[in-house]
Formats: sequence, C-alpha cells, structure tokens
Amino acid sequence: MKIGIIGATGYGGAELVRILNHHPYTDNCILYSSSDEGKAYDASYPHLRNIAQQSLQPLHIETICNEIDVMFIAAPPGVSGEWSPKLAEAGIPVIDLSGDLRIQNPAVYEKWYKRQAAPEETIQNAVYGLAELQKEEIQNAKLIANPGCFPTAVLLGLAPLAKNKLLQDSFLIVDAKTGVSGAGRKASMGTHYSELNDNFKIYKVNEHQHTPEIEQQLAAWQPGTGPITFSAHLAPMTRGIMATMYTDAPPGMSSAQLREFYSEFYKDSYFVRIRPEGEFPATKEVYGSNFCDISVTVDERTNRVTIVSVIDNLMKGAAGQAVQNLNIMNGWQEETGLMMTPVYP
Amino acid sequence: MKIGIIGATGYGGAELVRILNHHPYTDNCILYSSSDEGKAYDASYPHLRNIAQQSLQPLHIETICNEIDVMFIAAPPGVSGEWSPKLAEAGIPVIDLSGDLRIQNPAVYEKWYKRQAAPEETIQNAVYGLAELQKEEIQNAKLIANPGCFPTAVLLGLAPLAKNKLLQDSFLIVDAKTGVSGAGRKASMGTHYSELNDNFKIYKVNEHQHTPEIEQQLAAWQPGTGPITFSAHLAPMTRGIMATMYTDAPPGMSSAQLREFYSEFYKDSYFVRIRPEGEFPATKEVYGSNFCDISVTVDERTNRVTIVSVIDNLMKGAAGQAVQNLNIMNGWQEETGLMMTPVYP
Amino acid sequence: MKIGIIGATGYGGAELVRILNHHPYTDNCILYSSSDEGKAYDASYPHLRNIAQQSLQPLHIETICNEIDVMFIAAPPGVSGEWSPKLAEAGIPVIDLSGDLRIQNPAVYEKWYKRQAAPEETIQNAVYGLAELQKEEIQNAKLIANPGCFPTAVLLGLAPLAKNKLLQDSFLIVDAKTGVSGAGRKASMGTHYSELNDNFKIYKVNEHQHTPEIEQQLAAWQPGTGPITFSAHLAPMTRGIMATMYTDAPPGMSSAQLREFYSEFYKDSYFVRIRPEGEFPATKEVYGSNFCDISVTVDERTNRVTIVSVIDNLMKGAAGQAVQNLNIMNGWQEETGLMMTPVYP
Amino acid sequence: MKIGIIGATGYGGAELVRILNHHPYTDNCILYSSSDEGKAYDASYPHLRNIAQQSLQPLHIETICNEIDVMFIAAPPGVSGEWSPKLAEAGIPVIDLSGDLRIQNPAVYEKWYKRQAAPEETIQNAVYGLAELQKEEIQNAKLIANPGCFPTAVLLGLAPLAKNKLLQDSFLIVDAKTGVSGAGRKASMGTHYSELNDNFKIYKVNEHQHTPEIEQQLAAWQPGTGPITFSAHLAPMTRGIMATMYTDAPPGMSSAQLREFYSEFYKDSYFVRIRPEGEFPATKEVYGSNFCDISVTVDERTNRVTIVSVIDNLMKGAAGQAVQNLNIMNGWQEETGLMMTPVYP
Repeated sequence: MKIGIIGATGYGGAELVRILNHHPYTDNCILYSSSDEGKAYDASYPHLRNIAQQSLQPLHIETICNEIDVMFIAAPPGVSGEWSPKLAEAGIPVIDLSGDLRIQNPAVYEKWYKRQAAPEETIQNAVYGLAELQKEEIQNAKLIANPGCFPTAVLLGLAPLAKNKLLQDSFLIVDAKTGVSGAGRKASMGTHYSELNDNFKIYKVNEHQHTPEIEQQLAAWQPGTGPITFSAHLAPMTRGIMATMYTDAPPGMSSAQLREFYSEFYKDSYFVRIRPEGEFPATKEVYGSNFCDISVTVDERTNRVTIVSVIDNLMKGAAGQAVQNLNIMNGWQEETGLMMTPVYP
Repeated sequence: MKIGIIGATGYGGAELVRILNHHPYTDNCILYSSSDEGKAYDASYPHLRNIAQQSLQPLHIETICNEIDVMFIAAPPGVSGEWSPKLAEAGIPVIDLSGDLRIQNPAVYEKWYKRQAAPEETIQNAVYGLAELQKEEIQNAKLIANPGCFPTAVLLGLAPLAKNKLLQDSFLIVDAKTGVSGAGRKASMGTHYSELNDNFKIYKVNEHQHTPEIEQQLAAWQPGTGPITFSAHLAPMTRGIMATMYTDAPPGMSSAQLREFYSEFYKDSYFVRIRPEGEFPATKEVYGSNFCDISVTVDERTNRVTIVSVIDNLMKGAAGQAVQNLNIMNGWQEETGLMMTPVYP
Repeated sequence: MKIGIIGATGYGGAELVRILNHHPYTDNCILYSSSDEGKAYDASYPHLRNIAQQSLQPLHIETICNEIDVMFIAAPPGVSGEWSPKLAEAGIPVIDLSGDLRIQNPAVYEKWYKRQAAPEETIQNAVYGLAELQKEEIQNAKLIANPGCFPTAVLLGLAPLAKNKLLQDSFLIVDAKTGVSGAGRKASMGTHYSELNDNFKIYKVNEHQHTPEIEQQLAAWQPGTGPITFSAHLAPMTRGIMATMYTDAPPGMSSAQLREFYSEFYKDSYFVRIRPEGEFPATKEVYGSNFCDISVTVDERTNRVTIVSVIDNLMKGAAGQAVQNLNIMNGWQEETGLMMTPVYP
Repeated sequence: MKIGIIGATGYGGAELVRILNHHPYTDNCILYSSSDEGKAYDASYPHLRNIAQQSLQPLHIETICNEIDVMFIAAPPGVSGEWSPKLAEAGIPVIDLSGDLRIQNPAVYEKWYKRQAAPEETIQNAVYGLAELQKEEIQNAKLIANPGCFPTAVLLGLAPLAKNKLLQDSFLIVDAKTGVSGAGRKASMGTHYSELNDNFKIYKVNEHQHTPEIEQQLAAWQPGTGPITFSAHLAPMTRGIMATMYTDAPPGMSSAQLREFYSEFYKDSYFVRIRPEGEFPATKEVYGSNFCDISVTVDERTNRVTIVSVIDNLMKGAAGQAVQNLNIMNGWQEETGLMMTPVYP
C-alpha cells in the first residue's frame, strides 16, 4: 500500500515515517510539502540519514491519485479542512491528525480553537478514531479524525466508567501533564529550552482546546455527563503524557474490584495495560511505544477514585494511533508495525 | 547569634548554610554530625570551597550550650524526637525541619509515617511554623515544627479560603508536583538519574505523609473540613513544587473578585506574590528564593476554582521558611537574609 | 535459537531483552539471576509488562546446557571470568559485555581496573568483538569480548586512520561525553538525580579503564601508536556518547578528501553513517538505534583534524553490538533484528 | 550610582538586574529598550514581580546623561558599535557585554563574526575586561569590552601558563561545553526544547567567533602563541560552561607543582578557586555565582596537562564579570554585590 503524508516535517510526520519504515504492508511513504518542495527530507531530520531518502514532493491533487492509496495529514490547523474534501472526492481515504475534524459542533470548535471550523459536511463524514473503542466505525470509515494526545490518555482512562454509565455527576477533574514535543517543532518562546528546562509550568487553565473533545466523547458514552475541569501542565521532558483524573468512586466498588473491572474491560486490547495493585505507571515506561498504561485506585478515606493514564504523545497520542487506525481500516491486525517495545531507560 | 545545625550534610542543611552565610545577624554556623565528625564540610559540598570551611563537630549536649544560641535540626526522622527535649532542657530554641513534631495526634503520625511518634510533651510544645500565618505563636515559641514542603505550598494556597471559612465541603483535590531534591541526598533507585530523567512519575497516591499535616491545619482554620485527595508527582527537575488545587468556588465569587481577595489577604506578606489575571506561575520563577507565587481562577462553566501555588522546596519549603521563623522568633524583620532574587533562567 | 542472559536486571540486560524480543531467529530469552531467582522480570522493569513475562532463573551449569544455545553475560566485573570457562567447557558460546576479557595483558588490566584479571587462558580465547572491523575473527569465535561503550565510539572514529597507518605520532586527544545510563542501574551518589541534573561533570581524568582498551586496538592496527589522552565527561542525559577526537591531520589531506576516505572505508557498514560536509552528529540522532554517526573535518588554520563520533551507549555501545556479534557468529545478516530507527525527538 | 542597561530583556540583562538589585552602591537600574518602550519589565520576567517594577524606557541620548552614571550594553551585535561613541561623547562610561569591541583587528572580527566591525577608534578605546588579570587597565577605563563566556573560562584556565610563557608550542586543544542560555532568549530551532533535551551536540567546529578573542589574549601574554583548536558543544542544561583544555605540560612540572603554581598565581583572586588534588569541578558547583573553578593535572604517561575550568556563563561569563568590572572601575571592593553562594543542588 502506498502512503502519503502531508506535513511530514513536523514531529507527528517524522514519527509516522519512523513507524511506517518498518510496517510490513506499506511502501516507502511519499512526503508532501508545498513550502519545502524538492528538499531532501533527511536534511531536516538527520537521524533518518540512509533511512528516509525521499525528497519532499509538491502537492497536486491531479497526480496524488496515482501516487498513493491513503493519506495521513499531520499539518497545522486549516490544512485538513481544505484537503480532506479534495481527497474524498478523489476516493483517497484520509487519516487526519489535526484537531480540525474532531468536534462535531462547529460553534464549539470555533469557541475553543478561536478559528473557523472546517466545512460541516467534512466534519460529519469524519469518524472519531479512538482505536480501542470505535473499531467498527473505523473499519468502515474513509475519513478518520485521529484523537488528540490528551483526549487519548483521558478517554482510555475513563472509558470503562463512562461506557458503563458509572461516572458520578459530582465532579471530574483532569490534571494533565505533557512533554514539550506536543507543541510541535515550531520554535517559540514557549518552547525555548532555557525557559523550560528544570522548570514546571501550567498553561491553558480551563481553556485547552482538547476539553470539548473529551466532553463530547464522554457525553456520547454516558449522556448527561457535565463539563470537566481540565488543566494542562508542561513538564521538562520531550515525550510523554500523564493524565491524573479524580472523581467520586462508583458506589460500592473497592480498589481491587475496580482494577479487575478495568482489566476485564481491556482484556482484548493489546495496547492498554492495566497495572497491578500498588503500581503506578511513569511516562518513560511507554516511551517510543503505542502502549497506554493505566492504574486505578479508590481512596477509602474519601471514596474518591484516582485514575492515572500515561502514553507517548507522539505514538499512542498521534502517529501510533493513526497507524493503528490504518490497520483497522484495512482489516489488518491492529498491532501490525506497532509492536515496538518501550525504550527504557 | 550563634547557630547550630544538626544534619548539615543533607540538602536542607546545605541550603541553611547557603542562606545563613549572608545573614547579617548570625555568625558562621556550627555544623554537627555524629557520623562524619571531624570531616571538612566542603569535602561533601565542593560548591562551598572557600565559603564554608567548618569541619563537622561531634554532638555533645554538655558543650552545645556554650557553643550556640539556636539549633536547626535538618536530620532524618527520629533525631528531633530525641534531641528537641534535651535542647529544650538546655534552654536552646529549636527549629525542626523534619516531620516529627508537626502532627499533634500521635496515632495519626504513626499511621502515616509508619514509625513511632515523638514524646507527646515535645509535640505539644512545638508551634507549627507556617510563617505568614502563625506569626504570633512563632514569636513566643522555643520549638518550631517547620512545615513540610508540600503543606507549605498547599496551605498558603488555601489559607485565604480556609481562614475565612470559604472552603466548600464538596471536594478538595490537591495534585502536587515536586522536583527530586525533596527526596534528599541519599542515593536510591527512586532517585537514580537514569530512572527519572525525561520521565514523569506519580507516587504515594493517597498515602503521602504530608496529607494529615495539611488536613490538620485546614481543620484548625475551618473546623469540619473533611479529608482531602492528595497525589504526589515527581517531575524531572531538581528544585520546585507546584500544587494544583481544585475545589468548588465560593458562591458568587468571580475570578477577579477571588484574585482581589487573595491579594488583600496577603498584602503584608512580602514572600507571597499573587499573580495578575491570566498569568500562572512556573516553578523556575521562584528558584533559589523564598517566594510563594499563587494564581487563582474560577471556571465559569463549572463554577470550580483552580488554585496554583509554587515554591522552591528547599527554600520556602524548608530552609528559607526556617530562617524566616528564626527572624520572627528574634523580632527581626521577616525578610532578613532572605531577599535573594529567583535565579532565572 | 535459545538465548540466555546472565545479568538481565541491569540496563545492558534490559536492552538485550528489548532487542531480542523482536529478533526473528531467537526464542524468548532465559534470564538468569542468582540473587533474584524466582522473581518476575517485569516487576523490575514495568515497561516490559505483557512483553517479557519470564521469571528469573537460577544459574546451574548442569541444566544450562539443555536450556540455551548462546549466553550473553551482562554482569558486573568478575562474573564472566568465572562463568566463561564453565560455559566454554559445556560448549556454549558466550558474548561477554563486561570489561573482563578485553585486555590481553593481565598486568595492564589489573593496573586500570584495580582488580584481579580473569584466567589468562580465558582471555586468550576471547575475540574482541568490534563488529565492523573484526568480522572474520567473530565468525569463528566461541567467546566474544564485546567492546566497551567509549572504545566503540572512539575506535570506529579512528579506524580509517589507524588501519591505514595514518595516525600522526604527535598527539591524540579524546574528549568523551556520556549519558548517565553507562553507569548502570546501581544507585549511588554519583548517579543521584539531584547531583547530575542541569550539571556537567568530568571524571576519571587520565584514569578511565577504557583507555588501555583503545590503546591496545590502535596499536594492533598501527604498531607504535603511543598513549592517548582520555577524559570522560558526564552529561545530564540518559543515553548517548559523543567522542570528540583531536589529532594532526594526515599530511596533504583536505576535509573533503578525508570525508570521502571515511565514506569509502565504511561503504559496506550499514551501521556507520559518515555525515556530509558541514553536518555534525548529535547523540539523540542515534537514540535507541545501533548506528554510529561520524563527522571529520580538517582545520586549515592548524592542520589538525577533529573527528566526532556518536553512539547510543546501550545499543551500539553494548547490547546492540552484542546482538550484531551474535548475527555474525551465526552467519546471519548483520542487521537482523537491529534495524530500529532512532527515536527522535 | 545610577545604572542604565541597554538590552535588559535578554538573559544577560536580566542577570544584571538580579545582581544590581542587591548591590549596595547602585540605585534601581533604568532599563532601556527601543522596541518595547513603555512595557513593564516584569511582564517579560515574572520572576521579578514585586522586585523590578520599572517599565522599559526609550533611548534618547539627550536625556540619558541626566539619568545615569554608567551604562551596561547587553544587546545583540551592532548596538554597542553605535552607542558606545555617543555615550563616550556624553561622558558616560560603558561596559559592553557584546562581542563587538573585543577584537582589536577589524579584519579578524569581520572574518569570524561575518559582519562589519565597529568604528576603529571605538575599538581602540575599549579595554578588555578580564577582571582578574587586567585590573589596572580597567581602573582607568571608560569603555570596557566585557569578555565572552568561553574566553573567560579558557583564559582564566590558561593565564598562569601563558603569562609565565609556559605554554608549549606543540598543540593547544580547547574542548568547550556550554548550557543553552548562552544562546540568549531568542527562540530558534537551535534552542528549541525538544531538539536539545536529552541530547548532546557539537557546533561551530573550528568556527566559533570566540576563537580569535582567546588567541588575541594568549598572544598578548605569550607572544608567538599559535592558533588553537576550539570546539563548542551544547549540553542539555541551562547554565554553565566547562572548558577542558589539553596541551603539553611545562617541562619538569608535576601535577602537584602545577597545582601549587596555579594556587599561588590566583592567591589574591577571590573568585578563582583552584581545586585540591583529585577533585575536578562540575558546572553546578558555580551555578548562580561569580566563581571560576579550576583543576589542573599532568598525566605522567603522556606528559600532557589537562586543565578544567568551569563558570556560570551568565555570571562570571557575562553579567557577574561586568559588575566586577564596574566595581574595579569605581575603586570599590571587587566582590561587592557578587558574594552570592552557588545554588546547589
């Protein structure tokens, strides 16, 4: 299968290249770029010397059809809104890693993203690609809205409760921490080394654009779920997300029962690992892999539950899940090309 | 004034030496150590070459009285339980940086610390040294239980609410993040560089021994305050604590009003800085200083408040506050010797 | 093929498990440990949950013969000196990652390692496994002394000169920098997070035990090569080695000619990448991979050459090269199971 | 004394503010900026909330004379070439932290800096401000070219040899490592967090613009000193420089003699600390301070000397030395306002 990538010069794109380089059913990717057309890709990413020797290709809708079978879009906001319809018309399935097609309600999108929403028809055609939980929809999709990094960690952590209507309506707090690579490769004061090293920051308090994505999916699973409290924090590390989630425990459920319930819920999901009693995951333990590791525990003093979920934001939170969706769309085994062991330490 | 330090070879002790070295009213410290007696202090801490040229002294109660006027104890658990009574008898005021004398109820101490409590009389004599809020008690104290690092950040963040009985009884979540120096200088797998670098961990979920210290003080300010949910996280950095706190907002209070209320509450506290609207503190912004920076914001969608509080765990969270207490005890200006500007970047 | 690992609980052992887990010609490894016998391996390394579910096995020479076909030894000094002869007698090939069998002259070993050398016969039987340059010897070996991390980076950087007798006899300076994982998993003050983070150290100036290993091989290639100057530095990072090497340029060779000469020298070596003009490698560009990236440049002002060589110390500097040697010993393609792309960023 | 700073929004400027804030003989600084005129300084640097409450002032030569007594220029290249003459004319002494006035030969400047040199007269008027070694010239200067960060570390490490004509003419290698703050506050791909974290890079091999500054001073001390080999490396840390220097040892000098010779040379220099035998400095051991720590050792096997010198690049390598020069110019004690103890850990 021939794969195209729009936006290959970003970190999400580079991670797609790293994965697809060893995928047994795909050829070398074609990497598109309007701005850097003709440039050698490994000049941008010297770690790919002798590995990815493609040069960046111009993006012409006429030729694309003959060149590729599936397109990944790993570009800044706005690009998928423009290209998804064109590619749909050309019959090319699309997996979109941007946030443009995830929010069903354009008004909600515009409030949180502070920019115009994609065409409504495009949004309606997009299937939300949370791989473990939307397998059937994904199998039949031509257009996938690949979930955001924070929503992936959060929703995998909450799905066993929400899908069983066990979320309590009192409060739901999500305290999320991310490595800096989630901000992409574009240089800015906010990603400047000296400003972040040995430093811990909080940002977008109650204002992060991933909030409505989480709320939309929770409400789809358990109608009536109210707004969440969401804070994003920046940790001095490159990769990794930890979401620490707090809510009231489902009545009558002990720590052991809840952990068993989570294990049962994910028993067929290779990439979700529920940790044993007393063990909590660290971000490095999924580094470079497609795993999502989860711990749950109920505090008997307060009857509140603490759920901890970790992923590699560039893998399960972006490129890894995108390839998982490619596998599902094509009827291949979900783990194909994604079995890499976490790199530790 | 002549100062003694028991436990000077730990990080808390080294930070005391760094501060007191420039304190205008104190002489060179006498550094006590039973195990390393006679050893040059700067052999342990070469950054103090030509600065702290003392050698470590044996700890004999008979001679101590003639040598020092005040003792800081920055030693592992158990030491202050043994030495505080002896020093009290000898008439030497003590500022204890360990957790041994902070919990009034020995049964609670023993449950959380999993070790025997200090003698009850000693505990009863100790004044909890949260400098900004206990000034009067501290002025008259001979024995100070210097607050823990997490409790300092948390309690300064919640005091304006709790002291005004504005904490809501629904829920109170504290998601705390710390740098690694809080674990002290003792090598262990849990503080091994390769295990922590580029990694983010959660530990002691609902089990951290600072939990009862926070609860005890909140209940003293606002009786009836229930148990909190507390999680500690380890960030890949050396210094700094951020406590992110979530609770229901006091009815009818907007973000602006709450911020104004906090500013008013701390208007005479030099070391507490309430950040302006839209600005949240980062740990590096208090690095090496005695400041505690706080932001508060109410989310109108959920009517929940998010309070963010940062300190340098070795300064305001340990040695800095200890010297602040020394100043208060002696009637000196609170800021004496503690005006160091944060080192940034 | 059935593989055994002695010393699997160290970082070198864990990296062997990560690699061999996807090697097409090997079964699940058997992990030996005398001290942790019976313990689940993933309790030590939770990143391997659901991946490496072996428990640690006792080490009995009688049963080993029936269990494995090849043994890797990734244990502390002393172990391979004891076990290599036993395994040789049992007819089991050994790849030893320790430094015990690398130095041919026991007196030299004892001077630099400050401990007793292994039995002379065992040392004489060992082939130095610098994979790119000793292929023939390795193919026929039963006992491999896998090179040290620094020597691998240094020798690959100097081989084109030394093997062609082009090293000048004026001076040879090696300024080497390493990440902390090279020190292993054992906790100590020297690997304590707070002592190393945001810090840069130099250690073992002119005293590093890898010095004679480098000198021995250089002298084997170009007899008469004199002693080198070697300094080891500790950089605040987990993985990666950079060796910056300085010497007089071979007379009459320009930068371009020297680079071409290096490229030609390594044209059949997949894992050695010579960088184009003006591009110098960074350690992260080989992270998690078996590559060694090299740049060479001649300074026209001084007629001195600067050679820069980077590897991942746990991969090409340890486990990766060990598996490369396994491949060569067995007549498999050298790259088998080692094609992982560097994880970047 | 009233101090002005041009370029206060950079890291060098912020460090000047941090120091001068506690300097006993200076008032609050006036901070000049043409681009950010009117903006509050602490909006750029929230760590200075409640500390530096100035707003940025427009730069008018007419008013400056009435406002300040001395000007620091901590601005990008080009600014001091323009402003130094104007300020000289107005009779205001200048301490320039940029590289513009350090190189006496304009052709050399233009070759290495790849930009036009400052007016020759201005350059000739400038005194090179290596504080420990040029005290007399500095006392009488009206215009100081404050040394670069690398040259400060290197020259303090070599001065005892060069000033005594003990540098051997065989070779001189300087392998320098720096934290990222040396690159300033301007965001770029080269200072992007995800590109640098957990990574070690080499840059400007034989091309760093600090090379001629070092060579010029060495030749001034020991005429005939030839070109050096200089490599700059970027370590994943914020502050700190280590220069590791290699050359042939002065004939007949042992390690102990050389160390003694260095100690004697610097016996009146408070900020230079020669480390005892077997102890080498780490960058964190001078963090936030004005110290330069040096070790020297002779390798008996090779008769080469290894000199290690560390500084905080923003302090001794920039703002600290600039204030030291201010002190010397004014006849104040050199250490005034600069006694801060290194922040460790």
